Amino acid sequence: MRQAATEIVIATPGKGLHEITGEVAAWVVAQGMTTGLLTVFCRHTSASLCIQENAAAEVRGDVVRWLDRIAPENAGYAHDDEGPDDMPAHLKAILTGVHLSVPLIDGKLTLGTWQGIYICEHRRAPHRRTIALHVTGY
Amino acid sequence: MRQAATEIVIATPGKGLHEITGEVAAWVVAQGMTTGLLTVFCRHTSASLCIQENAAAEVRGDVVRWLDRIAPENAGYAHDDEGPDDMPAHLKAILTGVHLSVPLIDGKLTLGTWQGIYICEHRRAPHRRTIALHVTGY
Amino acid sequence: MRQAATEIVIATPGKGLHEITGEVAAWVVAQGMTTGLLTVFCRHTSASLCIQENAAAEVRGDVVRWLDRIAPENAGYAHDDEGPDDMPAHLKAILTGVHLSVPLIDGKLTLGTWQGIYICEHRRAPHRRTIALHVTGY
Repeated sequence: MRQAATEIVIATPGKGLHEITGEVAAWVVAQGMTTGLLTVFCRHTSASLCIQENAAAEVRGDVVRWLDRIAPENAGYAHDDEGPDDMPAHLKAILTGVHLSVPLIDGKLTLGTWQGIYICEHRRAPHRRTIALHVTGY
Repeated sequence: MRQAATEIVIATPGKGLHEITGEVAAWVVAQGMTTGLLTVFCRHTSASLCIQENAAAEVRGDVVRWLDRIAPENAGYAHDDEGPDDMPAHLKAILTGVHLSVPLIDGKLTLGTWQGIYICEHRRAPHRRTIALHVTGY
Repeated sequence: MRQAATEIVIATPGKGLHEITGEVAAWVVAQGMTTGLLTVFCRHTSASLCIQENAAAEVRGDVVRWLDRIAPENAGYAHDDEGPDDMPAHLKAILTGVHLSVPLIDGKLTLGTWQGIYICEHRRAPHRRTIALHVTGY
């Protein structure tokens, strides 16, 4: 067994789901393992990660609008230091989660045909987000 | 340290939570490790995984009805190619998640007494779902 | 590669988010690894784990009130054996999740500046909760 770890920085253009499958998979493949376990970790509390449909682009819009309904702005939050999109961003990050684990079999991530890895930016403004990657295997 | 990985196929009877603890635990035990880490990964975007109450059967019904309230059908989604249960299935998969990590101690999964591993089928129709399993340890 | 695993017991004072970052990080550091992967696992179905804002205390109150809105008491659940806070606790545990994976780089958890690890107690009464920890690396 061996392991590798790194951090990548993703510049998000503001609120939405932004695919990072290509960047993540390229790094994993470069580690040259046949079998293993990938972990993706988002080092933020107002951005998060999810695995979702990578074909139909309108799914992403539906996800964003649904998150806005589940965790709306201006809902009487005690915490509003950074503006109305701050506390909803924390809630959406809790709902979606900040870590992903994906096994590697036969030299490839076991993502299904329609699965992509996305960073979910919950703030309106563009941000630079740091993602830690770890893989163990051989 | 060593590792093992496989894929299992689960035939779901349609919408609901279907327990897979026995099948998953049997595979883990067969790997003969005392300490380790199990990862379970669902290769789909309209089915997912969760760990929940394994004793009271009515909990599963309550979970399904709650997910239906949180992510209802016919809520004006842009994506409806595969019918009214399609986009709600994606949303429910995001909320529950498609991966689980469970440590193994003293040769057993550390699942609590009342915890079972469930595949959550979010589509109305029966489906065949592929689950990747990975364990590392010794 | 090597690994270590243990269990810790957390006495929660009742409903709320209770930080366990210090306790978890101290155990990880004591294993003396430079690079690795930490897994935290909550062995319960009415308590869970999340990673959230560790600076502004009012965020925790907002999270608790939001969870109460998303999964309210007395919403016609079939399962109410243990009182009105029982089924909402299961739903909140599904939404937040019972496992966390955090890479370790340069001898430290890759938690962001504002990220803390929390146990989410969803029952009103104080409880003793068992958390399994596993780390692999070197």
